[in-house]
Amino acid sequence: MSRAEETDPELVEELLGGKHRALARAITKIENRSPGYREIVSALHRHTGNAEVIGITGSPGAGKSTLVDKLARAYRDAGHTVGVIAVDPSSPFTGGAVLGDRIRMASNIGDMDVFFRSMSARGTLGGLSTATADAVKALDAFGKDKIIIETVGAGQNEVDIVRTADTVTVLVQPGSGDDVQMLKAGILEIGDVFVVNKADMDGAARTVSELEEMIHMREDPRANLNVGHHGADAFSGDDRGGEPHGSVGDSDSIGGSDADDEERGDGGWTPKVVETVATSGEGIDDLVGVLAEHRAYLERSGRLEAKARTRYAEEIRQLVRSDAAALLERELDRRGGVEALAEAVRERETDPYAVAAEIVGPLEACVEGDR
Amino acid sequence: MSRAEETDPELVEELLGGKHRALARAITKIENRSPGYREIVSALHRHTGNAEVIGITGSPGAGKSTLVDKLARAYRDAGHTVGVIAVDPSSPFTGGAVLGDRIRMASNIGDMDVFFRSMSARGTLGGLSTATADAVKALDAFGKDKIIIETVGAGQNEVDIVRTADTVTVLVQPGSGDDVQMLKAGILEIGDVFVVNKADMDGAARTVSELEEMIHMREDPRANLNVGHHGADAFSGDDRGGEPHGSVGDSDSIGGSDADDEERGDGGWTPKVVETVATSGEGIDDLVGVLAEHRAYLERSGRLEAKARTRYAEEIRQLVRSDAAALLERELDRRGGVEALAEAVRERETDPYAVAAEIVGPLEACVEGDR
Repeated sequence: MSRAEETDPELVEELLGGKHRALARAITKIENRSPGYREIVSALHRHTGNAEVIGITGSPGAGKSTLVDKLARAYRDAGHTVGVIAVDPSSPFTGGAVLGDRIRMASNIGDMDVFFRSMSARGTLGGLSTATADAVKALDAFGKDKIIIETVGAGQNEVDIVRTADTVTVLVQPGSGDDVQMLKAGILEIGDVFVVNKADMDGAARTVSELEEMIHMREDPRANLNVGHHGADAFSGDDRGGEPHGSVGDSDSIGGSDADDEERGDGGWTPKVVETVATSGEGIDDLVGVLAEHRAYLERSGRLEAKARTRYAEEIRQLVRSDAAALLERELDRRGGVEALAEAVRERETDPYAVAAEIVGPLEACVEGDR
Repeated sequence: MSRAEETDPELVEELLGGKHRALARAITKIENRSPGYREIVSALHRHTGNAEVIGITGSPGAGKSTLVDKLARAYRDAGHTVGVIAVDPSSPFTGGAVLGDRIRMASNIGDMDVFFRSMSARGTLGGLSTATADAVKALDAFGKDKIIIETVGAGQNEVDIVRTADTVTVLVQPGSGDDVQMLKAGILEIGDVFVVNKADMDGAARTVSELEEMIHMREDPRANLNVGHHGADAFSGDDRGGEPHGSVGDSDSIGGSDADDEERGDGGWTPKVVETVATSGEGIDDLVGVLAEHRAYLERSGRLEAKARTRYAEEIRQLVRSDAAALLERELDRRGGVEALAEAVRERETDPYAVAAEIVGPLEACVEGDR
């Protein structure tokens, strides 16, 4: 049987059997939402749950690619297998930089035990965080020990993507004004580990102490009393602060803030700041150590399970919503299309509430009758 | 029968009979999404279509309230009846400023033929543009000749709200940097009429010429060749520019850009710039004239009908989507709630795609069986 005729069960089998080409094809189907991708992800799900998933985010130029490269190499040297998903939500097409990354990654490591894959918004508009989560499942089921999700920390989309990871690592470039940008995006609030990369640059020590101060304020809201606007704003989400907050995103976001706040209680996790020079490899061992510490904390505290639950709840909501949207679009078409319905409304033959009742009503009746 | 026991058909009848208290109660029900509001809007719909709906947006401090006040008075003096809906999407509660507006409006005009009503996001979170459109219908069915929607021009929500109007008026304060803010919000792109208010201030002439230059670039994209970043960016949406654009919002936005672009072809509408000093009433007559010109253009060109169709299509989509979301939430609850389902996924008893299929599948089967 030629590759084109290969059925999905065989693809799943080959992936589980350790064939990298099957893994690559599965992720392509996932990225493009090709027919059969759901069955693949469904079939893979029960083989997942063994990988450590690490998210790495930061501004362009902060050195994410180099850091991910060195981190992957360190894991590989320690005998672990690694999968990397580099996600660029802003570009609808895979750009040159990512292509360059792919070449770099391949040449540096030289074996498929570091599997590198870039994903863009091309095939997956509007559902990039779902597609990322699905690709992570493919890598997890394949048997990768460490999975790294790399994305630019620029907005809510990116926050959603990086939150599909168990441990969120935020890269900060000294003196770059990154802190302000990331405060805006709500990224500092979700960081478990902060990496001041290019720690040999001027201003690195100041950036480290600023981050530590912010973490301190997050830990102890009484410290907020003496700080200016930025600090107070950024960490108003602290669970002991008393006030509800919404800066990370709406309540539908993966890993909702309420759950995250738990880990900041007594005996919780205090975010760590690590200094690295990714180009020389300096500090990478420290980072590996801190990531392992956070993982141990997650397992010990039960937070790993809680995070998974929150994540799966969000996956369910997203899928239900998008499936229902597709169904409704077909129903609108079946009734002549939304344009014709709008024209009937304009002619005062009907009205929008009557149309909505006509479309959603039968679904409700059907569900009620089912009971 | 006491007012509390009054049934909705009676409320509709009284509203259509010209009772302002019934109008006020209907809008309260619409704003709060109280039981029965749908039936009210449904019943009113076929009595709508006679009012001219004017949207007025601009930054805080640009003088919107004063301008709306003077405009309402001018219409009143010309023998028209007026309804005003002032919408503040940013504040969850009606603030002091709006209360002040209400008092001002009442004392200035002194009769109910200018009906003023403020709406906040309080009762209508997530559906403020739908609620605004519904309130406009109540005013239209009541028989108001001119309906003014007033909102702060700050973001996509506000753009959606002001686009429920047939004519969009954008207020700009001289030398305020408003232009840059509004470029960002995509508001300049949707303006049919620009008002430079406080035209007696320093810098007013410059603001007028900047606006005229921008309109010129929008009309003739060849002019873009010689301009800097802002101009080119703001009007990349021109239909003759060749490139697709997305700055106004997604394709679901009311009055999608494709439709709007039409009116900029030959014989279309070139946005006008009007100078006013709202506090003294200077320029208000000019504004009234330009608004009438735009209305005549809309009727003559068929754009009025096209806009209504686009708006109703969006209303239908919004209602179908929110009704379906409520139905799905109940279905998730019926299956034990999303938390329990997420836990089953975490335990690998099922997976998110299987759960989504379980929930949406029966709806699909039911709809198919119906055919």
